Amino acid sequence: MKKMITPFITLLLCTLGLIARQQEPNRKQYTLVIHGGAGTIVKTAMTSAKEAAYEEVLTKALQTGYHILQEGGAALDAVEATIHVLEDSPLFNAAKGAVFTNNGRNELDASIMDGRTLNAGAVAGVTNIRNPITAARAVMEKSEHVMLSGKGAENFAQQVGVTLVDPSYFYTQDRWDALQRALKKDSTAAGENVDNRQAAKAGTVNRDDKFGTVGCVALDQQGNLAAGTSTGGMTNKKFGRIGDSPVIGAGTYANNESVAVSCTGWGEFYIRHVVAHDIAALMSYKQLSVEEAAAAVMAKVANAGGDGGLIALDKAGNMAMPFNTEGMYRGAVDRHGNIEVKIYKD
Amino acid sequence: MKKMITPFITLLLCTLGLIARQQEPNRKQYTLVIHGGAGTIVKTAMTSAKEAAYEEVLTKALQTGYHILQEGGAALDAVEATIHVLEDSPLFNAAKGAVFTNNGRNELDASIMDGRTLNAGAVAGVTNIRNPITAARAVMEKSEHVMLSGKGAENFAQQVGVTLVDPSYFYTQDRWDALQRALKKDSTAAGENVDNRQAAKAGTVNRDDKFGTVGCVALDQQGNLAAGTSTGGMTNKKFGRIGDSPVIGAGTYANNESVAVSCTGWGEFYIRHVVAHDIAALMSYKQLSVEEAAAAVMAKVANAGGDGGLIALDKAGNMAMPFNTEGMYRGAVDRHGNIEVKIYKD
Repeated sequence: MKKMITPFITLLLCTLGLIARQQEPNRKQYTLVIHGGAGTIVKTAMTSAKEAAYEEVLTKALQTGYHILQEGGAALDAVEATIHVLEDSPLFNAAKGAVFTNNGRNELDASIMDGRTLNAGAVAGVTNIRNPITAARAVMEKSEHVMLSGKGAENFAQQVGVTLVDPSYFYTQDRWDALQRALKKDSTAAGENVDNRQAAKAGTVNRDDKFGTVGCVALDQQGNLAAGTSTGGMTNKKFGRIGDSPVIGAGTYANNESVAVSCTGWGEFYIRHVVAHDIAALMSYKQLSVEEAAAAVMAKVANAGGDGGLIALDKAGNMAMPFNTEGMYRGAVDRHGNIEVKIYKD
Repeated sequence: MKKMITPFITLLLCTLGLIARQQEPNRKQYTLVIHGGAGTIVKTAMTSAKEAAYEEVLTKALQTGYHILQEGGAALDAVEATIHVLEDSPLFNAAKGAVFTNNGRNELDASIMDGRTLNAGAVAGVTNIRNPITAARAVMEKSEHVMLSGKGAENFAQQVGVTLVDPSYFYTQDRWDALQRALKKDSTAAGENVDNRQAAKAGTVNRDDKFGTVGCVALDQQGNLAAGTSTGGMTNKKFGRIGDSPVIGAGTYANNESVAVSCTGWGEFYIRHVVAHDIAALMSYKQLSVEEAAAAVMAKVANAGGDGGLIALDKAGNMAMPFNTEGMYRGAVDRHGNIEVKIYKD
């Protein structure tokens, strides 16, 4: 009799183990994750007032998105509304707080993706749209296109009723001063004909001028994932540079079958490594967890010399927010409404 | 004794089988593959003179690339030189033969990627660069950026010595007439405020106006892969639309570890499905062959309602050139210099 009971008990224990592993009762289920950019964010350079200001906006953004999800709203709506809060704050390099290009303009990029349909929309290099994430959503929903750029994107936004502002709306003293410092550095560097790759290596290009993008990923009660990213690009940007933020697959990706991702960092590395889609591919094709996939792809970026971070949220509510810079403004809310906000490394 | 010989023979046969499989002696090893766009290309609508003209340029393009590779040149050089031949021909929708935008301009996009380093470069919406693929390569090699757009990209190209032309260089009667037909169709349609997605479904947007991109993938004697794509976009294009051609991961991708890919077709679907990178991911993460991966991703595009084609060449010289349209201008050359050129379905 004992011989029969032993395998039965073993089977029972295995089954219970599997159930426990599937439910992972000790693991939090997140519904919305945000970032406000990665970079040289160190505690010694921060005042407690500034810290509190960042934490306040990050918290408000998370509450906004959570409220929509709790009411049964769509992940896409939560992503858009959450990013509005970050775009409307002068603290982040997106919309209101966007950095200045070399010629003293604010050129904004944004993209959004619906994990349910794989529909996506993006705008690049727009100068008079108050909330670029809303313009990106309009491209997705009201055109047959995915990516619109420059004046054409602005004309489209106007035609479909997206709120426009005078470009002066994006003026902030801090960002203007940052441009003046960058221009001064430029004039003491080798001039415009320099190989900027060399300049970056030599440290004459300020790597931190690239950071500050905002992003959001969300999972709604219907199991739909969505992702969005919005940025002012890099200080002293030239030549109509487009970074990873408006590039679907690089800075933004969402697929209900796997994960929603939004990136921030040195955009060129994120484009070359197709970061957001690579995380989804590792999860779908190699069954990696969201933490494993995010870590693996961040390692590729780091090995190539790039830095930054990302947020990722899978279809089960597991999330990752890795970064290889000193800090990343970030936060998450679980399905019970518990909010976590962080700035520095753990 | 027999007992010892049998496993020995089995092992020997297995080893020989493995060697045969690795060498695949009956399988051609390709070094360079090109496309000149996919679309409604049917034999009944083609004259033999037109057919011969297409075949002549495709053959010349393949010979140009093959010559470079045979001499020990780099895949990247072969891709650039091959695409020059296609860009300089008025037959294809790239550079010289580019279609016109809604406002009567020619706006060109191109990208290139080096599978050895994962470096990449792209230009979007340029109007005065004779060979956009060369501008894309200049972005990759002479800037710290990946993607430059519009006037800024043109200024960069001028600074680094890329050949500029007067925009009138891109005027061809055929393309101008195509725009006039599209504009006429527009004025009889619901006007600019229409939901273009509905218009596409209703057939009031000519799907074929999206096609005609050129591309090339190459494998050099050092085992390096490279990919490039160049396009004039879509006839009657509005709003500064950016398609998949200048988007790394969507229209172009190369990675020595797996494959080089260049796409042509309804760009929006190629962006949403991150087509070029998805093929590489299926090969790297699921060990699919290039044919299997290309077919799987083309099926995703088709299931979503998109059409077009692509070319893919793996690190062993295996290639695929699937398409789900009536035809695709395409060709390949193997390592012995044998050239294949095709237009219609097999």
